[in-house]
Amino acid sequence: MTLKARIEAAIAHSVSVGRGRGAPPKLADALEYATIPGGARIRPMILLSVAMACGDNKPEITNAALAALELIHCASLVHDDMPCFDDADMRRCKPSVHRAFSEPMALLTGDSLIVLAFEVLARVAHHDLKRVAHLILILSQRTGMPGGICAGQAWESEDVVDLGAYHRAKTGALFIAATQLGAVAAGQEPEPWEELGARIGEAFQVADDLRDALYDVETLGKPAGQDDLHGRPNAVAELGVQGAIARLQAILSGAIASIPSCPGEAVLAQMVRKQAERLTPVAPSVNTARPL
Amino acid sequence: MTLKARIEAAIAHSVSVGRGRGAPPKLADALEYATIPGGARIRPMILLSVAMACGDNKPEITNAALAALELIHCASLVHDDMPCFDDADMRRCKPSVHRAFSEPMALLTGDSLIVLAFEVLARVAHHDLKRVAHLILILSQRTGMPGGICAGQAWESEDVVDLGAYHRAKTGALFIAATQLGAVAAGQEPEPWEELGARIGEAFQVADDLRDALYDVETLGKPAGQDDLHGRPNAVAELGVQGAIARLQAILSGAIASIPSCPGEAVLAQMVRKQAERLTPVAPSVNTARPL
Repeated sequence: MTLKARIEAAIAHSVSVGRGRGAPPKLADALEYATIPGGARIRPMILLSVAMACGDNKPEITNAALAALELIHCASLVHDDMPCFDDADMRRCKPSVHRAFSEPMALLTGDSLIVLAFEVLARVAHHDLKRVAHLILILSQRTGMPGGICAGQAWESEDVVDLGAYHRAKTGALFIAATQLGAVAAGQEPEPWEELGARIGEAFQVADDLRDALYDVETLGKPAGQDDLHGRPNAVAELGVQGAIARLQAILSGAIASIPSCPGEAVLAQMVRKQAERLTPVAPSVNTARPL
Repeated sequence: MTLKARIEAAIAHSVSVGRGRGAPPKLADALEYATIPGGARIRPMILLSVAMACGDNKPEITNAALAALELIHCASLVHDDMPCFDDADMRRCKPSVHRAFSEPMALLTGDSLIVLAFEVLARVAHHDLKRVAHLILILSQRTGMPGGICAGQAWESEDVVDLGAYHRAKTGALFIAATQLGAVAAGQEPEPWEELGARIGEAFQVADDLRDALYDVETLGKPAGQDDLHGRPNAVAELGVQGAIARLQAILSGAIASIPSCPGEAVLAQMVRKQAERLTPVAPSVNTARPL
């Protein structure tokens, strides 16, 4: 089974838990709509790669962790797309959840996905109580307040924005969760894995800024130029396209250098390089640059 | 320390976790605004009463469980009050969260409170990993899909409503959570405690219908007549005021009869009687009826 297939199977299984007996059918459909098919599944891919680099000796726990992380990510997309935030009509090349279903359904879909993430973890607790408790603690801290993606999103409504805290929480939190959850799922301590997650998150933010600046709505499957519209900080605005690409490559080199010593270190470095290639946009003026 | 003081201290402590270092200040304020001061704290009171009836031999876990349950309840109020649902201007005699802060803040406050509930539990896992994993599983199942309050709320958007599933999930779920979490926090199995929670939930729904029918907005601290407005099922509409009061008393007698054998059985029955008195409205035509 490829990594991608394993990830999709784990996510589909977790969503089926939420579908269960006696579920209100529209909400059950909306949970599936919001999660399948997904995007690049980059967060669970990172989580799984780290877990495998650390031995992946409790695969049921790894699978639950990567599904939980992706459910949280999908929940954040559903809520962020809603009219009171981005008011986005499209997501992943199809109508956003509140457009396809309704605003109440989108609100409940996000809520249900958040809850389901924790349920999916709690369901595998019998495989290793200590690891799972640790996973739940990390996932909650990287999702909620004061340092998770909820806090990150909230910074956009503050009068005075702490830019460092904003970026760390808004984009960085779930990438740090990805590396740390992967390590803990495989029985390792999370702390040595924070820097790798933080750097990948930073790279992802710069790549997102680049894509947002370079591509149109058809390529992205969502409205482009949202950052600019909302006045959020943006690497392209600060550094220009070439500057932002150089920055992206420097961050990813740093990410690879930060990988803790572990049995699968080389394979993991290869995965980060591959993600880097995927992330770096091919703009007319830069398509000769080979990332990393 | 009275039970009420213990409950308030546990909730205040849990909210302070969400406030933490580096939090966006408005969202931190909104979390506190949504949770303190609270309403009757009836769900944590039931949880604590059951835990004490079962010996309450891990009070740190009981405190986390009752705070987590109340955070979920508060989150549901914040989201249910939003414009896409009840569009309620007032809650607990003050402006609802989206009125006092903003709609984006209300959405994030609900999300953050849901996440915080699981974090608060995960933080006490070291006191007893097995109990806490079980608490997280129960709380998630009674909150999300397919049988929790998210599912309950979603039934209101379905074309064909399963009334039994609707009531069990919408109001019943967090009362069943209350009795089961109380039992598990004290090291007991949850199953024997389901009926008590279900019956209290049913009683609460009837009492809510009665209050909604009899009282005005000033007494309730929230808009009255919402059920009628939204065409939801209602005990007063079905049975009339006197019939609904008789029904309430019958349900509560059944609740007391269902209490499993435990050291604090008598005290627990007394608590349910007290809640019954509190719940039964004193309407001009019925103020001589003594409940139970």
